[in-house]
Amino acid sequence: MNVDYASALATADAPAPGEVWLVGAGPGDPGLLTRRAASALARADLVLHDALPGRAMLRLVGPGATIVPVGKRKGLAPLPQPKINARLIAGARAGLRVVRLKGGDPFLFGRGGEEAQALAAAGIPWRVVPGVSAGTAAPAAAGIPLTHRGLASTVTFVTGHDETGSLPESIDWQALGRGGGTIAAFMAASKLDEIALRLLAAGRSPATPVAVVAQASLPGQAVLRTTLGQCTLEARRAGLPTPALVVIGEVAGLAAALLPAVGQAASLSRSA
Amino acid sequence: MNVDYASALATADAPAPGEVWLVGAGPGDPGLLTRRAASALARADLVLHDALPGRAMLRLVGPGATIVPVGKRKGLAPLPQPKINARLIAGARAGLRVVRLKGGDPFLFGRGGEEAQALAAAGIPWRVVPGVSAGTAAPAAAGIPLTHRGLASTVTFVTGHDETGSLPESIDWQALGRGGGTIAAFMAASKLDEIALRLLAAGRSPATPVAVVAQASLPGQAVLRTTLGQCTLEARRAGLPTPALVVIGEVAGLAAALLPAVGQAASLSRSA
Repeated sequence: MNVDYASALATADAPAPGEVWLVGAGPGDPGLLTRRAASALARADLVLHDALPGRAMLRLVGPGATIVPVGKRKGLAPLPQPKINARLIAGARAGLRVVRLKGGDPFLFGRGGEEAQALAAAGIPWRVVPGVSAGTAAPAAAGIPLTHRGLASTVTFVTGHDETGSLPESIDWQALGRGGGTIAAFMAASKLDEIALRLLAAGRSPATPVAVVAQASLPGQAVLRTTLGQCTLEARRAGLPTPALVVIGEVAGLAAALLPAVGQAASLSRSA
Repeated sequence: MNVDYASALATADAPAPGEVWLVGAGPGDPGLLTRRAASALARADLVLHDALPGRAMLRLVGPGATIVPVGKRKGLAPLPQPKINARLIAGARAGLRVVRLKGGDPFLFGRGGEEAQALAAAGIPWRVVPGVSAGTAAPAAAGIPLTHRGLASTVTFVTGHDETGSLPESIDWQALGRGGGTIAAFMAASKLDEIALRLLAAGRSPATPVAVVAQASLPGQAVLRTTLGQCTLEARRAGLPTPALVVIGEVAGLAAALLPAVGQAASLSRSA
């Protein structure tokens, strides 16, 4: 019987010396970091972080630690994946407590599997600290449940970008368009026209509600509420910031009934 | 232009008096609670919680608070949803700081949308604190990335149970079986035979790797590693505890290469 009791989840307060933790930072708000992620940051010797985790979050890193940004920064390309892997391995071999801080969740469009593979191949012990994915936090910010009785009993997460920047060829848009479940597309703002066309061609109604949620949980948060038929044009006009998550499906239309109770305090009405 | 800047995400340390927060507890390990969820528990006056959040997590609730279990308990049925809603509304109207603590994430198979609807209809202000979903934490525990370059660029979350306890009729298994993406099924252990049959009938290979992850992040965590063709029989033999999440797809086969580096310390080899 192939039952095993090993766990790839971190359970201590921080990585042991020579260990690498792949840590989910959540969508950006430091309040949405897990308690374990926060304790790991406080005790790490070396933190390699993506572009998303901002200054407020990096303030949680202890005073003696080395902090290395590896994502896109002003005027600089992100560090290539093999160099990130090499830096993680070198840190662990030097006996450091290493944290690899990644936006959202490491194993949901986070390329954490590739880093775990590189670490395993090098014989470096690793663990994962799952995080709140933008895939759930961004819809929540917009008042949208991903699944809802009578409206959607499945949700499919897709990405607008493969490694080359194109819409992934392997996605079966025909099947997605035919089904009635919720679709949540990561990094999809620039591919919204292609995605909408494929889903419309597969038979999804142009009246299907769509929400484009930009910078969820961050100060720049903004939500465009539109439809599958109108979203390409409206998103271009709105010019929302990135990153953005696109929610497609009947659940995206629920927010109108739910959000009034959120109260006016959080709501700024601006004309675009 | 339908752009709005309202947010349903909680941003304070705790609910204001008369406010209800729908709070994700994560998969069970108190270390996977978010910092905001922990501060909300510490300051709440009234906490209604599901069966999943255990004693270790409830120890984070402040000393003066009332704690009401509403999930399944020994010998007791869960409180019906309308009664939960009524209790939340009554607590808020009495001016209490109310936390509704839900396993995983409130808006991903958490029925949080129904509670938000009831609160909105009653004019009660509500906010959401997203949590780490079992949908990402359980695969991570088993060393399985949900998406992985060259193996899967989509993941679909489904549930094995609708409100009546049946496999939801609205799921397009034909489309799911035809696609090559990862499938993660919540509360699916008792419906594994039906799910496997439908996916095999739709053309998924019987050799497709499957992992059944029971009690992820909890002391009873156990993972059955099998295939789509064998999973029904093997799961029955293994008799794993609930709750369990089932991961179906090529990514479930990656763990063999990734887990050795997790180290032997966490691994207990037991014969079933």
